Amino acid sequence: MNNLNDNVKPIKIIPLGGLEQIGMNMTVFESDTSIIVVDCGLSFPDDELLGIDLVIPDITYLKENKNKVKGFVITHGHEDHIGAIPYVLKDINAPVYATKLTMGLIESKLSEHGMLDIVKRKVLDYGQFVNLGNFRVEFIRTNHSIADAAAFAIYTQAGIIVHTGDFKVDYTPVYGSPIDLTRFAELGKKGVLALMMDSTNALKPGFTMSESTVGRTFDTIFNENRNSRIIIATFASNVDRVQQIVNSACKYGRKVVVEGRSMVNIIKVASELGYINIPDGTLIEVEEMKNYPDEQVVLITTGSQGESMAALSRMAASLHRKVTINPGDVVVFSSTPIPGNEKSVSKVINELAMKGAKVIFQEAHVSGHACQEELKLIYALTKPQYAIPVHGEFRHLMAHSEVAQSMGIPKENIILMQTGNVLEISPQKAGIVGTVQSGPVFVDGLGVGDVGNIVIRDRQNLAENGIIIVVLTLEKYTNNLLSGPDIVTRGFVYVRESENLMEEARNVVMEAIDYCHEKGITDWSKLKNTIRDNLSDYLWKNLKRSPVILPIIMEVQ
Amino acid sequence: MNNLNDNVKPIKIIPLGGLEQIGMNMTVFESDTSIIVVDCGLSFPDDELLGIDLVIPDITYLKENKNKVKGFVITHGHEDHIGAIPYVLKDINAPVYATKLTMGLIESKLSEHGMLDIVKRKVLDYGQFVNLGNFRVEFIRTNHSIADAAAFAIYTQAGIIVHTGDFKVDYTPVYGSPIDLTRFAELGKKGVLALMMDSTNALKPGFTMSESTVGRTFDTIFNENRNSRIIIATFASNVDRVQQIVNSACKYGRKVVVEGRSMVNIIKVASELGYINIPDGTLIEVEEMKNYPDEQVVLITTGSQGESMAALSRMAASLHRKVTINPGDVVVFSSTPIPGNEKSVSKVINELAMKGAKVIFQEAHVSGHACQEELKLIYALTKPQYAIPVHGEFRHLMAHSEVAQSMGIPKENIILMQTGNVLEISPQKAGIVGTVQSGPVFVDGLGVGDVGNIVIRDRQNLAENGIIIVVLTLEKYTNNLLSGPDIVTRGFVYVRESENLMEEARNVVMEAIDYCHEKGITDWSKLKNTIRDNLSDYLWKNLKRSPVILPIIMEVQ
Repeated sequence: MNNLNDNVKPIKIIPLGGLEQIGMNMTVFESDTSIIVVDCGLSFPDDELLGIDLVIPDITYLKENKNKVKGFVITHGHEDHIGAIPYVLKDINAPVYATKLTMGLIESKLSEHGMLDIVKRKVLDYGQFVNLGNFRVEFIRTNHSIADAAAFAIYTQAGIIVHTGDFKVDYTPVYGSPIDLTRFAELGKKGVLALMMDSTNALKPGFTMSESTVGRTFDTIFNENRNSRIIIATFASNVDRVQQIVNSACKYGRKVVVEGRSMVNIIKVASELGYINIPDGTLIEVEEMKNYPDEQVVLITTGSQGESMAALSRMAASLHRKVTINPGDVVVFSSTPIPGNEKSVSKVINELAMKGAKVIFQEAHVSGHACQEELKLIYALTKPQYAIPVHGEFRHLMAHSEVAQSMGIPKENIILMQTGNVLEISPQKAGIVGTVQSGPVFVDGLGVGDVGNIVIRDRQNLAENGIIIVVLTLEKYTNNLLSGPDIVTRGFVYVRESENLMEEARNVVMEAIDYCHEKGITDWSKLKNTIRDNLSDYLWKNLKRSPVILPIIMEVQ
Repeated sequence: MNNLNDNVKPIKIIPLGGLEQIGMNMTVFESDTSIIVVDCGLSFPDDELLGIDLVIPDITYLKENKNKVKGFVITHGHEDHIGAIPYVLKDINAPVYATKLTMGLIESKLSEHGMLDIVKRKVLDYGQFVNLGNFRVEFIRTNHSIADAAAFAIYTQAGIIVHTGDFKVDYTPVYGSPIDLTRFAELGKKGVLALMMDSTNALKPGFTMSESTVGRTFDTIFNENRNSRIIIATFASNVDRVQQIVNSACKYGRKVVVEGRSMVNIIKVASELGYINIPDGTLIEVEEMKNYPDEQVVLITTGSQGESMAALSRMAASLHRKVTINPGDVVVFSSTPIPGNEKSVSKVINELAMKGAKVIFQEAHVSGHACQEELKLIYALTKPQYAIPVHGEFRHLMAHSEVAQSMGIPKENIILMQTGNVLEISPQKAGIVGTVQSGPVFVDGLGVGDVGNIVIRDRQNLAENGIIIVVLTLEKYTNNLLSGPDIVTRGFVYVRESENLMEEARNVVMEAIDYCHEKGITDWSKLKNTIRDNLSDYLWKNLKRSPVILPIIMEVQ
């Protein structure tokens, strides 16, 4: 180390999401006076988060440092990178920088929230820079399962940090050019302080196949099923996939129908911005489908993950108003189930098969994330001093760490962070120096953060065994029972067929009331506890069940 | 067809479970005067069946024909084939026939339910027959992921029906001998009317590997991790798998610890019956583990599916009282996640990795079910007139149907049944002639069938947005408001931080009461509906949420 380096001031890196999980990506870069935020994503709730619609990062730290925040730079237009923008920008109104398609998708989101006029935005092209306080961010072309994905070179007082975002190496992408490997090499030559790279596929050896290979699969499927209607389910945001379906449709003389709200919306944005090319006369409305024979139609739809409300699932369950699955239809899942969705996908496949459809599963798909050999390629080009694996569960970060070691990064220079960690990093040293408040914030309907762990735990208890409500009216002062106890249940047993049980439960409550009366217990909370405990004991002994028991006492003079 | 065949009386085959799903296997065979039942299994509830512990088949049809039931013949000792026995035999007390280990596991189940003395049982060996009314059942040796699995040749007035149960073809099984292919060939020569065969792996090409290959994998793992403690999670019922772990442990000088209630229980039964051979001095108690260095211990545990209450999951979450995961521990998942369990398994892997354990996943496992080439082998040997694919979701039955066609079974002789269908079958013809009541019966705690779809729907509604209870006390005759409205919520919002909302909700209720008062509405159900509707509208407009709203009116003179 020379003296010059000794004077380099460290910067801080604080992930507010995107670690320990896939989704909710958001990372804070902080110098003394400036903060920039890379990505602003949401995640979808796990099954145990009952009734929760979305999960966004806790941004208390950003709120506390509002004045420092110079801007948000966004790598690409997937929900787990842009989905929290409308929620976060209500509190932290800093400008947003992104490539054209990414910005188009952000704008459609802001517009839904009526925020288009209040958020400053700037579209950047690959190779362009933006100065944000002490930081300078360069947009670098990458490939991913959505067009216009960017990596960032972040120029800081401590050195250059490269953040890949989600990426893969695609030498023959459907839209645009291959990832800008030359720029990664140039940065490597300049000297990269740290590489923050996508770990999603770090457990997978080899190299992810090019998106364009899927097009050849589509051609084969179209060729082999010339006499059937073809229905293809895929991710709404995968515009290149849709483009390839359109290409095969044109080649084989089929009209294209698009079904599913998010699919229609994204294709609209992509068409307007020139990211998809659909020849005139190719697209028809779903209502026009009946005017064409089956073999002249391909229907592109949402629902490739078996989501119960998506178009394909509604078709499979005969709940779709406009499309009926017929024997002989060919249904292609151009996707792979995201972990946790396997069962719902199977359910849809079974329903389709029962209707006589031929289901093609998992042949027409490639991943959008880099496998081990691609990670090695980026290490070889950027030669970073530190490796900071990002985007993944802990097992993915661990696998990424082994890839980094195999590329010669010393173990002590590989930093496995957790959400909320504060990393201080400079060429001299790097280490976790503290933590900030972080974690998931639940969005339920219009409510953001008003449902917390206590409410979720209540929902889980209610879900497990239902609720028993015991209501009684007592006379003021005397505590004489004026009315009740009435017992009302929901989600416990089917009351009409359990009259004896309900009668017994009422007796147990009466005994508890009598007991309290005899003992001269007038404190309502004690009375409630006695009722709850006795009833709870009775139900456990007789049914081995623990419903939520809620005694309510009304008072009348 | 000759005249003799023309006089053959058909029999009925009625599956009460095991189709459209994996699990809950139970099939009724009926002649004019006799019924036999093959298997009597349970299934585990899907996520949406909130609070349900087990699902068993609806046996209304058996109850209606109680006097005909001659016996239950059980193919093997897995829960999806024996789990409903204690519930079903409370209603239909007919004798149970099974091989030795299978009966051992059935007996441990009956003993838990205090039913050992009331159920007649008979252990049969491979090659033995039992006469049950008009039926004669032969037990034939097969291989599966539990020892002592049997297929049945069921001799009926209409011909021989072969039912494979769950099976694979293992030429080098760990315990016992390979499947009795000779007997299948002999039956084929005699003439098989119908083959009912396992479809679980019908989507998979090729041949399932032998269980003994897993032993070689264990040897490799033990050899490569000589300095670490080894923890292996697998299915409790896979006694052969446990045997192979014990073998490797002996070879590499390790003591064996067994953790997890079901694992301990099954190993006890298997040891007593001679299905597992553990050399003296090999097994130690979990409390003794501390007396041995890490490299001299292997711990076999439940939890290979990430089940939250199983031993491995509790170790991973630091909730296990006796075992702590340490850095350097090697944890092997000797299993593959059952669809639906992928996320919980990932969670446990992440937790283990965070504790510094090395996790080996999916190398040390083979399936217990036959793949396509094995199915073809059984078709080639038995040459059945009809094929009836069983044990699988619809997509598996479809794939099995294609295998059968490839083996020359005409499409019209392949019968895809649904649970509850009544198949009438004879050499002259086979066809669905009706349906009987069937479906899932939910077991929740000690309650069997008292929780139905209405209660489940209530639980789902409660789970989604919680409950709001509105209580008021009215004066008899006048309907004057004497007390309340009180509003109590569970699982809705965190009330302490939502005081304004609760105050507003109370106002909405007051307005509804006033409105009814003004309009002279005295009917309580109308009053309740008005309160519910107004509050529901208010909450949807302001929060986009739909909690369960439960108005309760108390009456006082």
